[in-house]
Amino acid sequence: MKRIAIDMDDVMADTTVKIIQYINERVQSEYTYEGLINASSAEKQSFYDVYISNNDFLWEPGFFDDIPVKSDAVEVIQSLMDHYEIFIVSAATEFPNSLKEKLSWMNIHFPFISWKNIVFCGHKHMISADYLIDDHEKNLKTFTGTPLLFTAPHNLHIQEYERVNSWLEVKSRLLL
Amino acid sequence: MKRIAIDMDDVMADTTVKIIQYINERVQSEYTYEGLINASSAEKQSFYDVYISNNDFLWEPGFFDDIPVKSDAVEVIQSLMDHYEIFIVSAATEFPNSLKEKLSWMNIHFPFISWKNIVFCGHKHMISADYLIDDHEKNLKTFTGTPLLFTAPHNLHIQEYERVNSWLEVKSRLLL
Repeated sequence: MKRIAIDMDDVMADTTVKIIQYINERVQSEYTYEGLINASSAEKQSFYDVYISNNDFLWEPGFFDDIPVKSDAVEVIQSLMDHYEIFIVSAATEFPNSLKEKLSWMNIHFPFISWKNIVFCGHKHMISADYLIDDHEKNLKTFTGTPLLFTAPHNLHIQEYERVNSWLEVKSRLLL
Repeated sequence: MKRIAIDMDDVMADTTVKIIQYINERVQSEYTYEGLINASSAEKQSFYDVYISNNDFLWEPGFFDDIPVKSDAVEVIQSLMDHYEIFIVSAATEFPNSLKEKLSWMNIHFPFISWKNIVFCGHKHMISADYLIDDHEKNLKTFTGTPLLFTAPHNLHIQEYERVNSWLEVKSRLLL
């Protein structure tokens, strides 16, 4: 059985949607997810500059508790489990308060995935799998299997990887 | 640079020492670590039966906060880092409260190891490394590199793996 490693933030979870909500509250802005997807490079850079200066909420308790689940993620991942060994691999050890919250989030939304198949790490290059579905180039470029870039506002300019825009596209790529 | 994956409980941390202390308090027994090392199979089984029935403390906050560090672990791991890429790989996702405590424990005792090189998981068979130092056969038997069995009371009967009895033996095996 082939193994798929799946990232959490901006792949299973709509983390950027919640980040935008926090940033809008902190700096009185009106960013939207769709706006960010369609923004110019300069506009996008401006958002990420604000984010880098105002992202202390990532280290505070509570942020990772109630992030929305990506559309179709539950159904597609459950179907993938019939044909693949699934590991959830989240770069989370930078955020000590996120760990228990991410486990709890998994239990609520993906109760069919055991704690045995959840990995919290920093670097991902020691993860051995056949596929890695991730939104960050830094994780995909050191991966030894087949990398799949899950579309997020911050990675639209990246051309070097096979891209999946949604969980329905993941289903088409890996199941149909 | 070759990569070494290192388990935490009963390899870096004297977890069984703390478990014995908790068990003695709960069931009014007088087990000792040395006694357990030298116990007969039947005596050992008796201890582990008591432990399995009284191990709810593993899920409670606080247990993993202040476990003693194994002798020579700090110095030897620091020396190993000059010659190997080191990853700490702890099967911890079964215990949600342990995760933040284990990160804090690492920061206190091994501040020279970055969060980037700490992995919390359930299964370990998707970890790719050249060496795995672990006290559990279940982790060593699926490992694709060279397994090293770190001696603990529960694994003295296992003969199938190269054994290291202490961190000084790890140093001799991997550095000298």
